[in-house]
Amino acid sequence: MINEKLPQIFYGGDYNPDQWPEEVLDEDIIYFKKAGINVVTLPVFSWAKLQPSEEVYDFQWLDKIMDKLAENNIYVCLATSTAAQPAWMSKKYPEILPVDFDGRKRKHGGRVNFCPNSKVYRKMSTSLTRKLAERYKGHPSLLLWHIGNEYGNYCYCEHCEEEFRIWLKKKYKTIENLNKAWNMSFWGHTVYDFDEVVVPSGISEMWRDSGRERTNFQGISLDYNRFMSESVFNCYHEEYKIIKEITPDLYITTNLMGTFKPLDYFKWAEKMDVISWDNYPQLIDPMYVTALRHDLMRGLKNGKPFMLMEQTPSQQNWQPYNGLKRPGMMRLQSYQAVAHGADTVMFFQLRRSIGACEKYHGAVIEHVGHDNTRVFRECAKLGEELNALKDKILDSTIDAKVAIVFDWENWWAVELSSGPSIELNYLKQIEKYYKAFYDMNIAVDFVNPEWDLSKYDVVVAPLLYMVKDGVASNIESFVKSGGTFITTFFSGIVNENDLVTLGGYPGELRKTLGIWVEEIDALFPNMNNSFKLTENSIKLKDEYSCGMLCDILHLEGAKALAVFGSDFYKNSPALTLNQFGKGKAYYIASDPEEEFIRDFISHVCEEKNIFSSFEKLEGVEITERVKEDKTFVFILNHNESQVEVNLSDKEYVELLTGEKKIGKVTIKAKDLVILEK
Amino acid sequence: MINEKLPQIFYGGDYNPDQWPEEVLDEDIIYFKKAGINVVTLPVFSWAKLQPSEEVYDFQWLDKIMDKLAENNIYVCLATSTAAQPAWMSKKYPEILPVDFDGRKRKHGGRVNFCPNSKVYRKMSTSLTRKLAERYKGHPSLLLWHIGNEYGNYCYCEHCEEEFRIWLKKKYKTIENLNKAWNMSFWGHTVYDFDEVVVPSGISEMWRDSGRERTNFQGISLDYNRFMSESVFNCYHEEYKIIKEITPDLYITTNLMGTFKPLDYFKWAEKMDVISWDNYPQLIDPMYVTALRHDLMRGLKNGKPFMLMEQTPSQQNWQPYNGLKRPGMMRLQSYQAVAHGADTVMFFQLRRSIGACEKYHGAVIEHVGHDNTRVFRECAKLGEELNALKDKILDSTIDAKVAIVFDWENWWAVELSSGPSIELNYLKQIEKYYKAFYDMNIAVDFVNPEWDLSKYDVVVAPLLYMVKDGVASNIESFVKSGGTFITTFFSGIVNENDLVTLGGYPGELRKTLGIWVEEIDALFPNMNNSFKLTENSIKLKDEYSCGMLCDILHLEGAKALAVFGSDFYKNSPALTLNQFGKGKAYYIASDPEEEFIRDFISHVCEEKNIFSSFEKLEGVEITERVKEDKTFVFILNHNESQVEVNLSDKEYVELLTGEKKIGKVTIKAKDLVILEK
Amino acid sequence: MINEKLPQIFYGGDYNPDQWPEEVLDEDIIYFKKAGINVVTLPVFSWAKLQPSEEVYDFQWLDKIMDKLAENNIYVCLATSTAAQPAWMSKKYPEILPVDFDGRKRKHGGRVNFCPNSKVYRKMSTSLTRKLAERYKGHPSLLLWHIGNEYGNYCYCEHCEEEFRIWLKKKYKTIENLNKAWNMSFWGHTVYDFDEVVVPSGISEMWRDSGRERTNFQGISLDYNRFMSESVFNCYHEEYKIIKEITPDLYITTNLMGTFKPLDYFKWAEKMDVISWDNYPQLIDPMYVTALRHDLMRGLKNGKPFMLMEQTPSQQNWQPYNGLKRPGMMRLQSYQAVAHGADTVMFFQLRRSIGACEKYHGAVIEHVGHDNTRVFRECAKLGEELNALKDKILDSTIDAKVAIVFDWENWWAVELSSGPSIELNYLKQIEKYYKAFYDMNIAVDFVNPEWDLSKYDVVVAPLLYMVKDGVASNIESFVKSGGTFITTFFSGIVNENDLVTLGGYPGELRKTLGIWVEEIDALFPNMNNSFKLTENSIKLKDEYSCGMLCDILHLEGAKALAVFGSDFYKNSPALTLNQFGKGKAYYIASDPEEEFIRDFISHVCEEKNIFSSFEKLEGVEITERVKEDKTFVFILNHNESQVEVNLSDKEYVELLTGEKKIGKVTIKAKDLVILEK
Repeated sequence: MINEKLPQIFYGGDYNPDQWPEEVLDEDIIYFKKAGINVVTLPVFSWAKLQPSEEVYDFQWLDKIMDKLAENNIYVCLATSTAAQPAWMSKKYPEILPVDFDGRKRKHGGRVNFCPNSKVYRKMSTSLTRKLAERYKGHPSLLLWHIGNEYGNYCYCEHCEEEFRIWLKKKYKTIENLNKAWNMSFWGHTVYDFDEVVVPSGISEMWRDSGRERTNFQGISLDYNRFMSESVFNCYHEEYKIIKEITPDLYITTNLMGTFKPLDYFKWAEKMDVISWDNYPQLIDPMYVTALRHDLMRGLKNGKPFMLMEQTPSQQNWQPYNGLKRPGMMRLQSYQAVAHGADTVMFFQLRRSIGACEKYHGAVIEHVGHDNTRVFRECAKLGEELNALKDKILDSTIDAKVAIVFDWENWWAVELSSGPSIELNYLKQIEKYYKAFYDMNIAVDFVNPEWDLSKYDVVVAPLLYMVKDGVASNIESFVKSGGTFITTFFSGIVNENDLVTLGGYPGELRKTLGIWVEEIDALFPNMNNSFKLTENSIKLKDEYSCGMLCDILHLEGAKALAVFGSDFYKNSPALTLNQFGKGKAYYIASDPEEEFIRDFISHVCEEKNIFSSFEKLEGVEITERVKEDKTFVFILNHNESQVEVNLSDKEYVELLTGEKKIGKVTIKAKDLVILEK
Repeated sequence: MINEKLPQIFYGGDYNPDQWPEEVLDEDIIYFKKAGINVVTLPVFSWAKLQPSEEVYDFQWLDKIMDKLAENNIYVCLATSTAAQPAWMSKKYPEILPVDFDGRKRKHGGRVNFCPNSKVYRKMSTSLTRKLAERYKGHPSLLLWHIGNEYGNYCYCEHCEEEFRIWLKKKYKTIENLNKAWNMSFWGHTVYDFDEVVVPSGISEMWRDSGRERTNFQGISLDYNRFMSESVFNCYHEEYKIIKEITPDLYITTNLMGTFKPLDYFKWAEKMDVISWDNYPQLIDPMYVTALRHDLMRGLKNGKPFMLMEQTPSQQNWQPYNGLKRPGMMRLQSYQAVAHGADTVMFFQLRRSIGACEKYHGAVIEHVGHDNTRVFRECAKLGEELNALKDKILDSTIDAKVAIVFDWENWWAVELSSGPSIELNYLKQIEKYYKAFYDMNIAVDFVNPEWDLSKYDVVVAPLLYMVKDGVASNIESFVKSGGTFITTFFSGIVNENDLVTLGGYPGELRKTLGIWVEEIDALFPNMNNSFKLTENSIKLKDEYSCGMLCDILHLEGAKALAVFGSDFYKNSPALTLNQFGKGKAYYIASDPEEEFIRDFISHVCEEKNIFSSFEKLEGVEITERVKEDKTFVFILNHNESQVEVNLSDKEYVELLTGEKKIGKVTIKAKDLVILEK
Repeated sequence: MINEKLPQIFYGGDYNPDQWPEEVLDEDIIYFKKAGINVVTLPVFSWAKLQPSEEVYDFQWLDKIMDKLAENNIYVCLATSTAAQPAWMSKKYPEILPVDFDGRKRKHGGRVNFCPNSKVYRKMSTSLTRKLAERYKGHPSLLLWHIGNEYGNYCYCEHCEEEFRIWLKKKYKTIENLNKAWNMSFWGHTVYDFDEVVVPSGISEMWRDSGRERTNFQGISLDYNRFMSESVFNCYHEEYKIIKEITPDLYITTNLMGTFKPLDYFKWAEKMDVISWDNYPQLIDPMYVTALRHDLMRGLKNGKPFMLMEQTPSQQNWQPYNGLKRPGMMRLQSYQAVAHGADTVMFFQLRRSIGACEKYHGAVIEHVGHDNTRVFRECAKLGEELNALKDKILDSTIDAKVAIVFDWENWWAVELSSGPSIELNYLKQIEKYYKAFYDMNIAVDFVNPEWDLSKYDVVVAPLLYMVKDGVASNIESFVKSGGTFITTFFSGIVNENDLVTLGGYPGELRKTLGIWVEEIDALFPNMNNSFKLTENSIKLKDEYSCGMLCDILHLEGAKALAVFGSDFYKNSPALTLNQFGKGKAYYIASDPEEEFIRDFISHVCEEKNIFSSFEKLEGVEITERVKEDKTFVFILNHNESQVEVNLSDKEYVELLTGEKKIGKVTIKAKDLVILEK
């Protein structure tokens, strides 16, 4: 849905004129225009200025800014400023301040440092939001809304404990149901009243070990994660409802953080008009990981275009090593976002702050204060290009035949597990399988396991440990109807309360997969095993190494495509295929080396006739966005040297230059082409 | 003392039928019978079910279980269920909840999460125990008692502080004595009233560093360890006294944890009718470490048979890597326990739990719920064998000529020491010397340094840092009468309050050892020194490497068997021998490589004519248990391949098969023979 | 200023007769005389004995000790005993106890465990001090004063919070000034009242990461460091003022700790009559690091002789590995202190304590209790030598042509920085540059950047990140007048509030250096770059490696002596030289390998005609102290073997032997000569 006010790619970023003398705004506007910036996000952290005391609000300074921006045709992504309450508020109402995992009551400081269940916070934040919405609802510069900022504030205070009990009562109705769901007879935990439930934290059921939160009671901790994700969401949602009531036609968002574990973004997405997120790869991160995050963010709203709300023009400050983005990288990464479905390119930040912890975070306008810098020039060049693109690619989408199942609750459950191996890492498994498709330039959607899967040819669900109500039958129908389903070791083990599905692993998936897993061996870091392909198997290498977990399984209809190469379960099935209905269900019974995954996924894609139209080139990323009858092909060269891509005999128009392209096209290092067909 | 009710090896384990629907019990009994299980431990964690509120007790569900087990001739190791108080109790009486080392008041959760000095806990736990004892005292299935579970709960709360002061007053009588014992004039710590004493913890005198607790005042911290070990013991002992009063003829135990540092098990053992312990080796742990723990546990009651209360049938869940016990390993490790003096073989757990943190801990009956599993088959086979053994080996004991001194208070003191080296690790030194005997299949007893040593030929006391009242004279008489005594660097340094014995190291041992240690050098990790054997020395290699600490010592009657090979104390004595009375006292003035210890111990055994009747074979463990005129030889093959053991010309009966054996006997991989002579 | 009472090198150390039976004092005095000991420091930790309760003081035991020492002509460095308050005081007035960084209220224990802003502590400590001063002011043994002990106690309690607000009010006058200085509009931190300011700690703005304190608000944290350094100083200073009033002619000191980060020792030094410090190198520390610390301590009072208040005669106890000082090392290190400006040699401790955490810390009199030990013999030999030196070298000073800028506030600021690299380490950079001079035996002074620099030829200011008011102009005049100034990457960035100097890095130093730094790249640990010397450059090697940070800079008058060898800023300047006025200003735009610094510093010294009169020998340290027309040359041989030093044709008198020396002089391993000219 193209925005009528600004029917082109939004280009701009976070801007904090209230941190500067008034005259700086005028200077900045000149630079914004030079850079082609058309949107600024503000005021993200100005609650203390907007509300100097409980009774007093001050919007005049903001009026001035908004007006001046409007005069200059710069639009505003209006932030509600509720991510950091004023110091006076924390002082007057200490209940706002959270208690951390270790049981420590926090003092005022930092940001997003409030208890999400604080009634005072909720009242104060919604009051401010209402005033902002009422005041600026018709303002010419107002383009869309930005609530809070990078939410993620778990709390463990007594007030949260109270609310948790109410939440549980609503969910479980009776104490018997709760005792059962959490298996409370274990370790004599049976409770007789909801009031006996204690918040799981570092001073009750949990502890931290090797950087991970561990628990005695997975059920309690899972529910607390759900409750906290929902509590924080409610902070967002209460503001959302007010804004929606006052400006029903404007988009509302909040900036998400990609693969951020504490919040179940699928749930959040239901009440976000558009997804926006902050992309902060380290200089050394592989490109496929960034691509994955874009695809996941796009997946939250089932493929709708999203916003790149923040990225740095040059360097970050909070990483251990904050390398500069090399020339061309910022532009290339901006287009990578677009190539994966973004319709905006925005920065944190437009002007570098003078003090406090983010002053060494890159900005369009650096500390030197003028535009004669490499960074500004690169930003200005990109701005010019994006403006020239007009509304061309807006609203185009990505058409994927492959989906990877992603589930926050499963993520939590897998990593709260006590045993079999500390190496269990949900994201790493997701990344491994995603990479195989990425390397072949095959588009991938991320999906919630409860969604309709029928439009996909292949669904991969790595580590589908937790199988929630309806998920097994969803997968079953997908396979029955001809889909190819792939899952791995440690899948199908528990229900949504982390209670084991008795009767044999992989529980509810057993039928579809045609196997029974009797035992799960955990290998020490220096141990490994291997996949040996069976004779009547698919065409891969003879043997691949594997490790971490090895299932000892029995075939119940499936056939073994590979068996283990050693240990006492040598020759027991390691890779199985079950023909089920019209489809196929694969089970990968260990954690194989990357090469296996590549070959195996390649084989499956071949089976399903899924391929990229372009030959594969190392370091070259290719995606396609489609709109009506148009296709936009993005070819990104992440290499340090130029590449030649063969377009064969199709003719394209290169969007950035307007040139026609056919046959071989040369792309310089860190450069790209966007081809329209 | 063979149990009249069940005059055979107890076989069974922890069982939690109250965590399952009622009908599961019937199923389980069928499986128990199939598996030869004759004892179940229960209800370990059922306090909340047994006492739903302060006034209400509910034993009916337990009656049913006890009765049904009785009907089926399955005995019960009856647990008092006091290891985890109900949630309602923690809520009603927050004083029960402990304060941790870091000064944080804990909330309800986990297990063994109570203040050992809580008066409410003591009252409530003994009330429950009394009711259980009264109710089941004559029950046909009641075989023995199991108090609490894996105690170890240090607390640092204000109530403990109060009790600590009372304990100190009783121990020291006057404040002057306390000031002296703790050397309180150091750092101006002099106190004028017992009320000024503060519990040593992470917010007063102590801190944690590299995973170890450090302290400013060793004397205070040592006494607090003593006080805590005793406080926790009192929780056990109060229940013990009640049960003993009501069922004087039944054995009472609690499950210990091997080399568990916080509790002085020698003190505990005095009030345990039989030692029981939980054996949880990791898959990669060397076998001698497990053997050591069995021997230590046997030593607690001076050689009496003990119970293997818990081991896993297959895998654990709480280790970082929870590998499966390979086929045969569970059986072999069960017999290893018996070979070292156990008269029972029991598991945690009989049925895998459906939820919470131990659901991936192995069990006789796995999640699949039937007996068609490798694990069940192995358990059933073992059950059959053990039942066939009848009372054959029961009450037989091990006759060792070698003792290793083990002392919890010394352990605490060594590792609380500030200097000379962070590498000081009591257990590692114990293990090093134990291993030398183990590798030669020479039986070792573990003894308290205050015990009569006269029955031993050789006594080894590694790192005998703390020499308590009477210990030096005990050792002196042992040597005088012809015994061989071996000790090491950093021995004889302090008295029981960790006050240095002035006048020259090794203090009270100086006379027996015939040396004066002038200085103690601490080597950095990349430094080492060596033992160079002197000409008139024993027959070992010419030189061995050594490290960590090096004593610079003077001979005062002893002679040097080896000298240091380098540094400014090159050629000063490194290994000394003092002929003292009819015996010998060796001093090892540094931490030598394993090979030296092997050769040296071998030499000493040769001197004392101590040897195994069997040739040494890599990976083959041999022990002997004797009863009246019978000897039972256990030959365990821990290797992955078969071995041939030469019995020479003695004739034996193989207990498991009834076959006669003479000459060479072949033992398969992970297999064993038990030979009767 | 030679002390009239004891006009020679003070020799002695910390002594705690109150920790021993009375008769031990008599024994000790005999040993002190044997060892040539003429000063003892006491009573450092005897507050609890001096004041058994609030109303009662007891000095009689101290009178006896003081008198007996006087009788034996042993002087006393009288300690005020206020480093550890009595337990009764902590109990009676819990406000004395501090709150730690993590927000935990401490309990009594340890030492220096009081809130520096506690009014009770201040009142109690000054009362005791006044009584001590009044009582002993005319005592014949009283030589000088020692206040407290190793101060360093930061606190985060509510009382400190109150005092911090008062301090801020005094400093900033208005809340607007404070908001500006801390850039509080960032993250909406604007405060409207000083009461809204929260102490920065682990539960508000800060956290710990990789052993370093991190913060959200550098300005707040910096000011808190300043406030805490000053608060702790005030504890010292309040005692100082009382003593000065009562004994105006006696020196007053407190023992500092070298490169100790929490306290701004330059500020402290202003109210210390003489600097004293505790020197505790590990056995493996390189000698130049100890030399640096001596020089820094000497620098605190602009070159005046200082006291070596503590060192261990043999080993420490609180390091991970406490190796013995090898024979000769104690003596050599003692003379190293003298060689760098010390006029005393003192130990911790004279007699080893019997219990608590320092009992394994070396002492002149060891646990054995007699003088027949290597350590005692070495101490006695040194005592004899020092006594023989009489007042010869007293009050002589070091004449350095080179200064290194050292600034505690800059240290704090650099390491509180969030970005660009976690590797930023102020001390390491200081050490790197110091080492280059040390290796050439060129004397270095450490100076406060605000001091007059005109007496130096070369001033080096590594990582001069924070440029406080007046510092830039100070450097500018230094260079203008002909000085050579050297600074590095990440210099000139911020003002004293850690606010960036806008308009281009290196801010206020830009003019003097003639450059503009546009970007600062941070390299990952496995990355590096290089310095390639330009053709018209100074004579060094062609290329040196460099890393960590690389500035991308533009020449504005300076010329490039080296350029970067790779990356996208290949060939941009890496080492620049600006001819400015009569002087030169060098900028080193990255962190080069040690070899570059050596060669570069050597080149600069050559340019300025700075050199040692002696040839350079590996492991041989040479310094010169001068007094009037005398020069004392110290030649220390740190090697394990002897060296031959060429004195060429000058004639010297060897002070320790009285021999004349000319030509080649041989110095044994770990030996030294002191030559008078």
